[in-house]
Amino acid sequence: MEKTMAHKFINEIAPGEQINDIYIIAEPILRSTTRGDLYIAMFLSDKTGRLNGRMWQATETVYKSLPKPGFVHIEGRSELYQNNLQIIINNISVVDVSKVTLEDFLARTDKDTKQMFEQVKEIVGRLKNPQLKALVTEFLADDELMEKFRNAPAAAKLHHSYLGGLLEHTNSMLRVAVAILPLYPQVQADLVLAGIFLHDIGKTEELSYDMAFSYTDSGQLIGHITKGLLMINKKADELTAKGVKIEQSLIDALGHIILSHHGQYEFGSPKLPATPEAFMVYYIDDLDAKLNQVTAAIDKEQSDSNWTGYQRALETRLYRKRLE
Amino acid sequence: MEKTMAHKFINEIAPGEQINDIYIIAEPILRSTTRGDLYIAMFLSDKTGRLNGRMWQATETVYKSLPKPGFVHIEGRSELYQNNLQIIINNISVVDVSKVTLEDFLARTDKDTKQMFEQVKEIVGRLKNPQLKALVTEFLADDELMEKFRNAPAAAKLHHSYLGGLLEHTNSMLRVAVAILPLYPQVQADLVLAGIFLHDIGKTEELSYDMAFSYTDSGQLIGHITKGLLMINKKADELTAKGVKIEQSLIDALGHIILSHHGQYEFGSPKLPATPEAFMVYYIDDLDAKLNQVTAAIDKEQSDSNWTGYQRALETRLYRKRLE
Amino acid sequence: MEKTMAHKFINEIAPGEQINDIYIIAEPILRSTTRGDLYIAMFLSDKTGRLNGRMWQATETVYKSLPKPGFVHIEGRSELYQNNLQIIINNISVVDVSKVTLEDFLARTDKDTKQMFEQVKEIVGRLKNPQLKALVTEFLADDELMEKFRNAPAAAKLHHSYLGGLLEHTNSMLRVAVAILPLYPQVQADLVLAGIFLHDIGKTEELSYDMAFSYTDSGQLIGHITKGLLMINKKADELTAKGVKIEQSLIDALGHIILSHHGQYEFGSPKLPATPEAFMVYYIDDLDAKLNQVTAAIDKEQSDSNWTGYQRALETRLYRKRLE
Amino acid sequence: MEKTMAHKFINEIAPGEQINDIYIIAEPILRSTTRGDLYIAMFLSDKTGRLNGRMWQATETVYKSLPKPGFVHIEGRSELYQNNLQIIINNISVVDVSKVTLEDFLARTDKDTKQMFEQVKEIVGRLKNPQLKALVTEFLADDELMEKFRNAPAAAKLHHSYLGGLLEHTNSMLRVAVAILPLYPQVQADLVLAGIFLHDIGKTEELSYDMAFSYTDSGQLIGHITKGLLMINKKADELTAKGVKIEQSLIDALGHIILSHHGQYEFGSPKLPATPEAFMVYYIDDLDAKLNQVTAAIDKEQSDSNWTGYQRALETRLYRKRLE
Amino acid sequence: MEKTMAHKFINEIAPGEQINDIYIIAEPILRSTTRGDLYIAMFLSDKTGRLNGRMWQATETVYKSLPKPGFVHIEGRSELYQNNLQIIINNISVVDVSKVTLEDFLARTDKDTKQMFEQVKEIVGRLKNPQLKALVTEFLADDELMEKFRNAPAAAKLHHSYLGGLLEHTNSMLRVAVAILPLYPQVQADLVLAGIFLHDIGKTEELSYDMAFSYTDSGQLIGHITKGLLMINKKADELTAKGVKIEQSLIDALGHIILSHHGQYEFGSPKLPATPEAFMVYYIDDLDAKLNQVTAAIDKEQSDSNWTGYQRALETRLYRKRLE
Amino acid sequence: MEKTMAHKFINEIAPGEQINDIYIIAEPILRSTTRGDLYIAMFLSDKTGRLNGRMWQATETVYKSLPKPGFVHIEGRSELYQNNLQIIINNISVVDVSKVTLEDFLARTDKDTKQMFEQVKEIVGRLKNPQLKALVTEFLADDELMEKFRNAPAAAKLHHSYLGGLLEHTNSMLRVAVAILPLYPQVQADLVLAGIFLHDIGKTEELSYDMAFSYTDSGQLIGHITKGLLMINKKADELTAKGVKIEQSLIDALGHIILSHHGQYEFGSPKLPATPEAFMVYYIDDLDAKLNQVTAAIDKEQSDSNWTGYQRALETRLYRKRLE
Repeated sequence: MEKTMAHKFINEIAPGEQINDIYIIAEPILRSTTRGDLYIAMFLSDKTGRLNGRMWQATETVYKSLPKPGFVHIEGRSELYQNNLQIIINNISVVDVSKVTLEDFLARTDKDTKQMFEQVKEIVGRLKNPQLKALVTEFLADDELMEKFRNAPAAAKLHHSYLGGLLEHTNSMLRVAVAILPLYPQVQADLVLAGIFLHDIGKTEELSYDMAFSYTDSGQLIGHITKGLLMINKKADELTAKGVKIEQSLIDALGHIILSHHGQYEFGSPKLPATPEAFMVYYIDDLDAKLNQVTAAIDKEQSDSNWTGYQRALETRLYRKRLE
Repeated sequence: MEKTMAHKFINEIAPGEQINDIYIIAEPILRSTTRGDLYIAMFLSDKTGRLNGRMWQATETVYKSLPKPGFVHIEGRSELYQNNLQIIINNISVVDVSKVTLEDFLARTDKDTKQMFEQVKEIVGRLKNPQLKALVTEFLADDELMEKFRNAPAAAKLHHSYLGGLLEHTNSMLRVAVAILPLYPQVQADLVLAGIFLHDIGKTEELSYDMAFSYTDSGQLIGHITKGLLMINKKADELTAKGVKIEQSLIDALGHIILSHHGQYEFGSPKLPATPEAFMVYYIDDLDAKLNQVTAAIDKEQSDSNWTGYQRALETRLYRKRLE
Repeated sequence: MEKTMAHKFINEIAPGEQINDIYIIAEPILRSTTRGDLYIAMFLSDKTGRLNGRMWQATETVYKSLPKPGFVHIEGRSELYQNNLQIIINNISVVDVSKVTLEDFLARTDKDTKQMFEQVKEIVGRLKNPQLKALVTEFLADDELMEKFRNAPAAAKLHHSYLGGLLEHTNSMLRVAVAILPLYPQVQADLVLAGIFLHDIGKTEELSYDMAFSYTDSGQLIGHITKGLLMINKKADELTAKGVKIEQSLIDALGHIILSHHGQYEFGSPKLPATPEAFMVYYIDDLDAKLNQVTAAIDKEQSDSNWTGYQRALETRLYRKRLE
Repeated sequence: MEKTMAHKFINEIAPGEQINDIYIIAEPILRSTTRGDLYIAMFLSDKTGRLNGRMWQATETVYKSLPKPGFVHIEGRSELYQNNLQIIINNISVVDVSKVTLEDFLARTDKDTKQMFEQVKEIVGRLKNPQLKALVTEFLADDELMEKFRNAPAAAKLHHSYLGGLLEHTNSMLRVAVAILPLYPQVQADLVLAGIFLHDIGKTEELSYDMAFSYTDSGQLIGHITKGLLMINKKADELTAKGVKIEQSLIDALGHIILSHHGQYEFGSPKLPATPEAFMVYYIDDLDAKLNQVTAAIDKEQSDSNWTGYQRALETRLYRKRLE
Repeated sequence: MEKTMAHKFINEIAPGEQINDIYIIAEPILRSTTRGDLYIAMFLSDKTGRLNGRMWQATETVYKSLPKPGFVHIEGRSELYQNNLQIIINNISVVDVSKVTLEDFLARTDKDTKQMFEQVKEIVGRLKNPQLKALVTEFLADDELMEKFRNAPAAAKLHHSYLGGLLEHTNSMLRVAVAILPLYPQVQADLVLAGIFLHDIGKTEELSYDMAFSYTDSGQLIGHITKGLLMINKKADELTAKGVKIEQSLIDALGHIILSHHGQYEFGSPKLPATPEAFMVYYIDDLDAKLNQVTAAIDKEQSDSNWTGYQRALETRLYRKRLE
Repeated sequence: MEKTMAHKFINEIAPGEQINDIYIIAEPILRSTTRGDLYIAMFLSDKTGRLNGRMWQATETVYKSLPKPGFVHIEGRSELYQNNLQIIINNISVVDVSKVTLEDFLARTDKDTKQMFEQVKEIVGRLKNPQLKALVTEFLADDELMEKFRNAPAAAKLHHSYLGGLLEHTNSMLRVAVAILPLYPQVQADLVLAGIFLHDIGKTEELSYDMAFSYTDSGQLIGHITKGLLMINKKADELTAKGVKIEQSLIDALGHIILSHHGQYEFGSPKLPATPEAFMVYYIDDLDAKLNQVTAAIDKEQSDSNWTGYQRALETRLYRKRLE
C-alpha cells in the first residue's frame, strides 16, 4: 500500500465497505467459537475512533505475529453487528512504523511547528545572563532532544494533548511572558524565559506518543518535573566538563522554577513557589493550559446547548454562548 | 497646629523628645492607680508604627471626649519605660479629620493616581460592545464612586494594601490583559476588560480606610464580590430607566466573572469559573496580586538573609537573592 | 387527544401495546440504515421513566420539526428489542405545552400547595419589625413571583426535587423556626422568619422546571444565593422609590443570612454565618433538606434489604429498618 | 475560714489589699534568688481570673506540701509589680475540697438545675417503646451517674463549658426535639429522645471538673462517644441479667445515634449518620451547641464594637448589633 | 448430589455444557415474556465469577421458593446469547448450607489456618503483664469467637478479603511486631502484642461471610472498632465477675490502641494515636494491609503490561516489573 | 582559651558569675541609649539555651566585626534584669570554628556513630544485585559524602534532629527492614535496602548544621528528595564513565522509592508509592520517624502529668504513663 493513498478514517467508514488500509491494532485476543473454531478479536483505531475487528478462521501463528499494540495492514469488510459497526478481516499483516503517516493516528497541532520553534529560539536568544544563555544554548544544540521537543504533546490528556502540543504550549507561554514582563520590572526576565523554555522539557521523556498518548515506564515512576531537573543538571555538568562553569545558585534558582511550577503539592510539585519568577511561571503555565483546555472543551461539543457536559477536572460545565 | 508643619513620624521619635503633633488614638482605657488616681492608657499611631501613651491625672470628662478610635492632637514627651518608648501626655484634644494629612496615617501607592486612572479610562474606552460600553461608562460617570475607586486599597492585608491600591491593581491587570489578549483570540476581549475594571469595584464599599484598613459592617456581612454584583445590576437598572437596555445574558456573563474571580469556593467565590473570560480574569487577578504580595514581602525585610520570614499565606519563606 | 384521557405512563407500558399519547422527546438523531434509509432515534419519557423510540422511514423534514427537547404526540407500538422495551413510531407531532398535563411529566409535592402557602403568609404575617414586614409584604404582593414560588422545586436533585418543593421546604422550615424560637430568646425571630421565607427565593430564577428539573443559563452562571440578594435589594429599592425607607443595615443583616445559609464555602456560600440568626437558618435548612433527602431515599427503594444503596452525597448507605 | 464569708474574687482585688481566702494553686515552682534564698512562684486562680503568687523565704517542706494543682488558703497582700498585680504570700495551707464552695471556682449554669432535670425526666418519660423505656429508666435510676449528669459541663471549652452545662444542653435539645418531631412523622420519636438523653452521657466520664474543666486520662484515651456506647451496653447487660431483654438491633440503632452525632469523621464520629433519627440528633446537637457558643461569645465581649474578635472555631468574627 | 463430586466452576463452563451443580442465586426476578409466559431471571455465581441464568416456563410458586440470595442446585445447559454465556435452567431446588463446600464459593487464604492460629497463640502466650495475659487468655478460651476469628476475612474489599484473612493479617502483624520490638525498647511489647491480637477482633461481628463478603446490620451501624472496644470491656467485666480484676487504666491503654489504629479521623478512628504503642500498631497494620493489597493487585492482573490498572484506593497504577 | 576547658553551659549559669567562654552570637543590633551612647544587643546561645547579651560602650567597629551568626569568645558577667538572666559583656572576639567543640552547641546522638555506620555497611553489603551493589558501593566510597552522612541530622525539627540523626535513622530503618523482609517474600529486598540507605541522602545537602539546624539555600529551593535523585543519577553517570553500566530501569525503580517515600503529595512527594518496595520504605520511614518523635516528646517533658503538652504535628497530647 502506497503512503500516498488517502487514509480511510474510522469515523468515515460506512457499513458494507471494502477495507484496505493501515490501522492500529490493540488488545488482540485469540478465542474459540462454540464449535471449537479459533478466531481473533481486536480493536482497530486511528485518531478518529475505534472499532471492533473479528478475524474468523484464525490460527495461533497469525495471532502470535500480531503486535500488542502496533500498526497493521487490514483487508476486509465493514458490517453492522447489533447496531455497532465492526470489521471482518480477511488478511492482516504487520506494518513497519516507517511506512506509516503518523498524523493519521495521532492528532497534531494545527499551528506551524517550524515557525513556533523559530519563535522560541528567538525569544530565548534574548537572554542576557551568560550562564543561563549557555545552558539554554546547550539544550537548543541537542538535536535529538529538540526533535522530541517539537513533536511531544504537552500532556496525555486535558490540555495540548496532541503532537506538537509541548512546543505550542511553551511557545505560547513565552509570548505571554514577553508581553507582561515589562509590567513587572522586579521579576528577573532571564530566569522566567529560561524557566518557561525548560519547565516541561521532562515531558519529552515522560510521555510516549508513537501510537497513542501515554506514559513511559520511566515517566510514570519519576515524572516530568524530576526528569526536567535531572536534564538541567546533566547539561550543566556537560558544560562544566567543557569548561563553562554554571553557578550552583543559578541552577537551583532555575531548578526551583521547574519543581514548583505546578504551584501546589497535590498537583505533584515537591516545592511551593518561593521566588517572584517561580510565581510568574506557575501562573502563566496554569493560564495557558486552562485556556487551551477550556476552549478545546467548548469547541469539541457538537450540541446546540449553551453548556458543555460536566468537566470533572474543572468541577463545572462550561458556558459556550458568546456575546452577540 | 498648621498642616504645613512636617509630621513627626512614630518611628522617628527618640526618647526624651517634646511631642506636639496629631496621631490616631485607639483603645483608650480609664484606669486607676494603686493610690486611686485616674489615668488613661491608650495607643498612639501613624502609618509608621504604634506606641503606648499614658495621661496621668486624667478625668472621666477627658476620657469621654476621646474618639475610639480617632485623630487627636497630643502635647507631651517621649520616654523609655522598661526598654519601650512611650508618650507621657500633658494635653490631648480631638482633631477633625478635615485638618489631617491622611497620607501621614495610611500608606499610599507611590504611583501616579491620575495617570493610572487615565490609563484605565483609555483601556476600557476601547470596548466595542455597545451595551458593555454603556455600562462601563455609567460607572465612569459616577464621580463619587470613581473618587473611592481611586483611593481605596485593594485589600486590608496581603496585597496592594495601601491607598490607591485598588486602582493600581486594576490598572495593572488591565495592562496585562491588553498585552496577552491578542494571544488568545477565542477569548472575548470586551468581557475580560469590563470584568477586570469591575472585578473588585465592591471593595469601595467593603473596606474602610479613613484611619486604618478594615472592613465596613456591610462589607463584612456581604463581601465585595456580592457587592460588585449588586452595583452592576443597579447601574444596569439605571441605564434601563434611561432607556438603554442591557441584556440579562450580558449582565450574567459579566456577573459570572465577578462571582468566580477568586477561582475556588474556599476563597469566597460562590461560583467556579465557567467561561474562558472568567478563567482569564481569575488568573490575571491572582498573578498580579501574588506578584505584588511577593515583591512587597521581599522588599519589606531589612535583614541580610537570603530568605524572608515564613509567609503564612504562601506556606513558604521567600528567596530574596537575585542572579548576579 | 383530550387532556381528560388518562396518560399511559412509561412504567406501565407492556410489550405489544398500541401507543397513542403525549411524551417528552429528547435528543432526537437522524440516522441512516445500512441500506441508506433514514430513521430517527430518540428518547421518550414522562415522570415514570424513559424508553428508546425509533421512527423508520423518517424524513429530514420530520426531523427538523421536532423539538429538542419538547412535548410530542406519538402514535405507534411497543416492542421488545434485545430485552429492552422500545417504541416504534408511526406518527409524531409537536404538542403545545398548554395542552399538556404537567403533572404527568414532573413529580409534584403530595401536600396541599394552597394550604402551605396560606401557612407561610400567616407565619411571616407575624413579623413585628415594620421594615422587614414591608419588605416581606412587597414580595408577597408580587403575584408573578409568588406563582413561581409555589411551583418551583427546591433543588434539581437531592432534596424536595419536585414541583412545589420550594414551598414545601420553606413552609416546613418556617414551622420548625416557629416551634424552636421560644427556646432561644436571644435570637431575633423577625430576622429568622424573614430569612427563611427568602433564603431560597433565588431558586425561582435559578431552576427551570417546564419539562425537567434543570438550571437556567442565568441560574448556572450566577446561582440562587446571589440571585436572592439581588431580588431583596431590588425590592428594597422599589420600596424606597415608594417612600418606604429600608435601612441598609437591615438589608445587610437579612442578606447575610441568605449568603451564609449553606454554612460552608465549599457549598457555595461566599460568607460564613456570623450572626445567631444566620446560624439558626443554616441549621434549620440543613435539617429539613437532609431529612427530606434521607426519608425519600429510604422510601424510594423497593428491595427487601435493610439498607438502601450507597448514597454518594451522604457517603453512606441508609438503614431502612424501624423499631418493632 | 468560714464558708459563709464571701469569697474575694480575683478580678475584684485591688493593689494593696490584705488577702485571706481560698484559691486554686497551679504550677508551683521552687526557685532560688540571686542570693541563694528559696522562694515559691505559683499561679492563684478562681473562676474570675488568675494572678501570680510569690512566697519569699519558702522552704522545701512547704513546697512539697502543696498540691499541684489544688485548693489552698492564702494569707498575704496584693501588690503591683511591673504593672501586673501579684500576691505576696505570708502563709499558705492546703484546704480540703469539702470545705470549698465550688461555685467560686468553676462557672455554673444560671438556670435551675433541679427544674431542668425534672423536665428531662418528664420528656423521656413519654417513651412508648418498652425496651427503650426500660433502658432509659435504668440510667435515671443510677443516682451516682445522674448526680454527675446534673453537674458535668457539656464541653471543656467552646459551648456550655460550665457546671450543669451537660444537663442544660441535653434539656434544651430534648425540648427542641419535642417541638419539631410532630413536623417529621417519619422520624421515630422514641429513638430521637432516648438518643438525645444519652448522646453525651459519656461526658460524665470524659471530663473532670473538680477544679477546672479538663479531661480524665480515660476520657482523653477513649473519648465520650465510645464511653457512651460502653455505658449503654453495660446498662443493657444489667437489664438482661435482671431478665429484661433488650434487642441487639435496638441497642445498635441507639448506639449508632451516639456514634454518629458529631456528623463527620473529622469531628471524631467513627460512623456517619445513616438513619433519619441519627440525622435529627446530629443537627439538633449542632444547632444547640453553636447557638450557645455564638451567643456566649457575643455576650462576653465588653467592647462597643459591632463585632466580636475573631472566633477561630467558627472562622469568622461575630456581628453583635441587633435590629432597632 | 454428593459433595465429593468436583464443583464445576463458573469460569470453566464452556457453551453447550450440561450443568448439574450448586451455585449461589442472587436477585431472582419473575418476569413475563411478550406472549405473557412467566420466566425467572437471576444471577448464578461461585467464587470464580457470575453468569445470567434464565428459567423459562417458570411459576410463581417456584419463584417464591427461591432464596434471595442463597444456595441452589441447578440442572440445565449453558449457551451463548449475544456473545455472553448464560445458563438455561430446567430444574432448580434450594440447597441447605450444610451441604455446601463453602470454599467453592468464597475465596480462602492459601496459608495453613491451624498453623497460623498456633503461632498467634504462641506469640501472645509470651505476655508478661498478668492482667493483659488474663484478658487475652479469656479471648482465646472463647471457642465460638476463635472459630470466627479463624474464618473471618480481614475486610470486605481491598486487603485480605478472603476466608481466614483476619487470622492471616493478625498473624503477620504479630510476627512483624516480634521482629521489630527489640529495636524499640521504649515501646511496651505486651501492649503492642495484645493490641495487635485484638485490633480487628470486632470484624468477627462486623462482617458476614456466609455467601459473600458484606456487612452485618450491626457491623454497618456500629463498626468493628467500637465493637472491639465493647468486646474487650465485656471480657474484662466477665473476668472481674470471676474475681480477676483488670485495671481500668490498662483497659483504656489497650482500648486506645484499638480506637486509634486507623491513624486518622477520616478512616474512622475516633481518636488519634497518643501512645508509642498505638503508633506502632497503626503503622504495622497499615504496612501489612497495604503490602497485601499491593501484591494481590499485581498478582491478579493477567496482562503483559508493566503496569496494573488504576487502583483508586491507592491513587496510582502499580508497577509490576521486577529487577532482572 | 583551650578547648580542653569544660564549657559553661547556658542552663548552668547563675546570676553574678564571671563568664569567659565561647557562645554562638545571633542577631546583634547596634543601638543608642537615651543619652546617645552606643550599645550592642544580641543573643548568646549553646545547645542548652539562649540568653540576652548587652555590650555597653560599644563601637561601630566592634559591631561590624561580629558574625551574624557565628562563634564568639565572651568575657563578662551574668546578672538578673527584670527576673531574666542576661550577660553584660566586657570583651568580645570572633572565634574560628576550628577552635570550637561542636558538641557543646549542637545536640548529638547518644549512640555510637562508628558502630552504627559499620552496621549500615554490613547490611547493604548483603545486596545481591550487582548493579545496585555497585551503585551503593560508589556512595560508600565517597569519603566526603559519608562524613556528612555520619554527622547530619535527619531533620531540622520533629525527629532525629541532632548530629548523627541521619545515620541513626537510616541504621534503624535498615535493621527494621532486615527483620521484616523475610515475612514479605514478594518484596525485593535489594531495592528496599538500597532505597533505605539512600532515601534521605539528599539531607546531607539540604540541611546545614554548623551552628544550628537549618536549611541551605539550595536545600530550601530544591529539597532533599530531588537532591537525592540528582545524587543517584550522578553516581550512576560516574559508574558509566568507568565502564559500569547501570540500567535506567533500575535507577528509575530506586529513584521512585526516593521520590515517593513521604507517601503523600502534601508531604512533598511528587510521586505516590507504586511498587511494593516503595510502600515498604515509606512505612518503615514513617514508623521510625514517628516513634523517635513520640518517645523524644515523652522524654523531654519534666512535669508529673500523665500527658505531654499538645503536639501540633501529631494533633494530640501524648500519654506518658506506662503499665505498672
